[in-house]
Amino acid sequence: MNILKFDVVIIGGGPAGMAAASTALASYPKKKIAMVKKESQTLIPCGIPYTLSTLPSVESDVMSTKPLEEKGLEVIIDEVKEVDVNSKQIFTDSGETIEYDKLVFATGSRPVFPPIPGADLDGVFTVPKDIQQISRMKDALKKMNKIAIVGAGFIGMEMCDEIHKMGKQVTIIEARERVLPIAFDPEFSLEVQKVLEKNHIKTLTSTRVKEITGNGHVDGINFESGEHIDVDGVILSIGYRPNSALAKNAGLFIGMTGGIWTDEYMRTSAKDVFAVGDCTEHKEFFSRRPSKLMLASTAAFDARVAGTNLFNVRLIREIKGNIGIFSTSIFGKTLGAAGGTETDALESGFEVICGNASTVDRHPGSIPDASKVRVKLVFSKESGILLGGQIMGGKSVGEMINVLGVAVQSRMSATELVALQIGTQPLLTASPVVYPIITAALDAYSKMHASHEE
Amino acid sequence: MNILKFDVVIIGGGPAGMAAASTALASYPKKKIAMVKKESQTLIPCGIPYTLSTLPSVESDVMSTKPLEEKGLEVIIDEVKEVDVNSKQIFTDSGETIEYDKLVFATGSRPVFPPIPGADLDGVFTVPKDIQQISRMKDALKKMNKIAIVGAGFIGMEMCDEIHKMGKQVTIIEARERVLPIAFDPEFSLEVQKVLEKNHIKTLTSTRVKEITGNGHVDGINFESGEHIDVDGVILSIGYRPNSALAKNAGLFIGMTGGIWTDEYMRTSAKDVFAVGDCTEHKEFFSRRPSKLMLASTAAFDARVAGTNLFNVRLIREIKGNIGIFSTSIFGKTLGAAGGTETDALESGFEVICGNASTVDRHPGSIPDASKVRVKLVFSKESGILLGGQIMGGKSVGEMINVLGVAVQSRMSATELVALQIGTQPLLTASPVVYPIITAALDAYSKMHASHEE
Repeated sequence: MNILKFDVVIIGGGPAGMAAASTALASYPKKKIAMVKKESQTLIPCGIPYTLSTLPSVESDVMSTKPLEEKGLEVIIDEVKEVDVNSKQIFTDSGETIEYDKLVFATGSRPVFPPIPGADLDGVFTVPKDIQQISRMKDALKKMNKIAIVGAGFIGMEMCDEIHKMGKQVTIIEARERVLPIAFDPEFSLEVQKVLEKNHIKTLTSTRVKEITGNGHVDGINFESGEHIDVDGVILSIGYRPNSALAKNAGLFIGMTGGIWTDEYMRTSAKDVFAVGDCTEHKEFFSRRPSKLMLASTAAFDARVAGTNLFNVRLIREIKGNIGIFSTSIFGKTLGAAGGTETDALESGFEVICGNASTVDRHPGSIPDASKVRVKLVFSKESGILLGGQIMGGKSVGEMINVLGVAVQSRMSATELVALQIGTQPLLTASPVVYPIITAALDAYSKMHASHEE
Repeated sequence: MNILKFDVVIIGGGPAGMAAASTALASYPKKKIAMVKKESQTLIPCGIPYTLSTLPSVESDVMSTKPLEEKGLEVIIDEVKEVDVNSKQIFTDSGETIEYDKLVFATGSRPVFPPIPGADLDGVFTVPKDIQQISRMKDALKKMNKIAIVGAGFIGMEMCDEIHKMGKQVTIIEARERVLPIAFDPEFSLEVQKVLEKNHIKTLTSTRVKEITGNGHVDGINFESGEHIDVDGVILSIGYRPNSALAKNAGLFIGMTGGIWTDEYMRTSAKDVFAVGDCTEHKEFFSRRPSKLMLASTAAFDARVAGTNLFNVRLIREIKGNIGIFSTSIFGKTLGAAGGTETDALESGFEVICGNASTVDRHPGSIPDASKVRVKLVFSKESGILLGGQIMGGKSVGEMINVLGVAVQSRMSATELVALQIGTQPLLTASPVVYPIITAALDAYSKMHASHEE
């Protein structure tokens, strides 16, 4: 039997696998590195909603491994069936045995399929990272008119915008009392709800689905309240679950959230085996509690930490838990969040002081494409450390939230943010005098000082 | 005689004065704070080029003091003629005497007027921060056809774009061998020159003006090379000089660059007297040498440091010198720079390793408004510390350069940047797998490691 041998084997070709491969190639140019992935065409996961309207086709949302293959990555299209961490071998669906020196699990996640009666009817979809299933969903949606989306998280909201752009009538259903309930504080959720209303999206919050009705094909939804709506299709976007079965069967320790447990350097409980991305259990940045955070950017971060440290710990830096940095753009509004919300922080037992600012992202505000920007920053009361922030505005928020993200990771205080140096330009940013992050920091700073003032 | 008394007096109503006032109001809400400024209408300085085409009028580029007046700021329209730092009094043009407890100079800067024969002809302009003069220039430019701009720094380039948009024929003249020679390395300057060429802008680099010709009104320029061009108008944008005469006459120490000397907390050589913005001498971030850096964002930073610390040093943070964070948008390309260039760093005696990346600022790249992004990062070779970076791309560069700016200020290393957590979203940013700043850091990181590899 012919046994393939590699120095590094990465299982999975999503953002986590891709970033692990590119970092490993850059860090260890002389090692033989392979990626085993199920399909030749892998979707860019965060691009999936945009395959419905914004992008010309589902196929235009595909990640290419070509640039990495040119740098020496071996790509094997196959499915891993079993891993033996003692003999350091993996066994594939096509009967291949592959030996590794270092192994990286980047097996991703799959949609949560809720135990709701009728969830298996035709016309009911989840949002898996699978090109065939997404193509089928898109074709089916085209023929429908009234579509309900269950779950008002990021994916649900982005699907809502795109399906609305397809000319459909959309209803959003959320069990909690507001949309985007995890990443944002209530005042931001309410602003988004206003935008949804303006765009004739029916938003049902505090609403639980009891049953999806239909005879073969979905025709409606019954709610726990007893109410009913008629629909032609349903999209279930209520979260994702880590693909950790392969790792569990290999004897790797699984954390309390169902993800593969890792240490600060993304090493699992088995020697020479790493895990990165959605299939792992993350840690909250401040509390260090286990977290279900699943973001492509977090996965890529994990992967860079692992990829650099495969053969020895070169990146001398504990990862400090994962700061979630989210952004989205819906109905022309951009929203971003980094670190914890006020709601989060209070629940975690922090005492907080918040700073707010409202300004525009160009100066003067009469610059043609100026958008209003609203910033909220959350600081720990005693230490003054930035715990997180939320921004709403125009497209500039996409990178502005990263400014805030770096500030959170640098554990900056309100005083440091007040003295932050920032670049500004009329066509590109807010005015230097009211740069929104600094203005919000100044607001919090003055509140911290109010009590000391004679 | 009626003597006005204030706890804090700020001289000047530009970005430095405005930010000093807003920070002082937030930090010391019970103090009486006044701003003395020459004119009721103050231009937003970085908006000046945009008054020519992008903005509807010169008047739409005016900063309003109203929001600060509502918070208690007293605005006095008058010119300060003399300051007595012993009696703590200032004397104005209209005969007023004002007593202060703390005084802030925010007197700004004025254009360098070069000793070139003919520079005083009609049709030759500098770019002062003065609404009347800018209005007059705009009216005059409308009637001209061929316009030469002397100086290819940020203001020159932005004026070039705007005058081109007015439908005029523009020639850029730069004494050094390339455009934007201070903020960018040669490869970026050359890219910009290609963009200029594509837009039919004549760019004369390594070209020195000998004489501006004309009889009453400008009609041409003679170069030191002996060549001549015909022009209808000339704009001189070759830099600014600090307005430090008032401070000098008051006995304040003036630094070697001609700006008011200050300590780390923006305190001048006189007790209870601060200075902020263009009128001061700045310090380079890495070498701590005196610097002529004049940016509204730097001025606002100075002002926040001073405003917070007027009565006692609350903001316990040395300012570490000034990191220049520049951005501009010309002919649809956005350019940003933070910290030092490679050219700078080598001249300052650093050994450097650079990292490069080219990607797009959306993902997938087929998202309709995607722009190419090019990043160059400059690291100190031994310590691995980020010295600066340059980015070219679409509008997202405006805030992306601030991500880099915060990283420079946090003295991040290549290894830390490789492990940076960043938020990404298809419509707003590059892919998490090739986020440009991290990809460039990885490039540098792998170069640093190449020598250690067996």
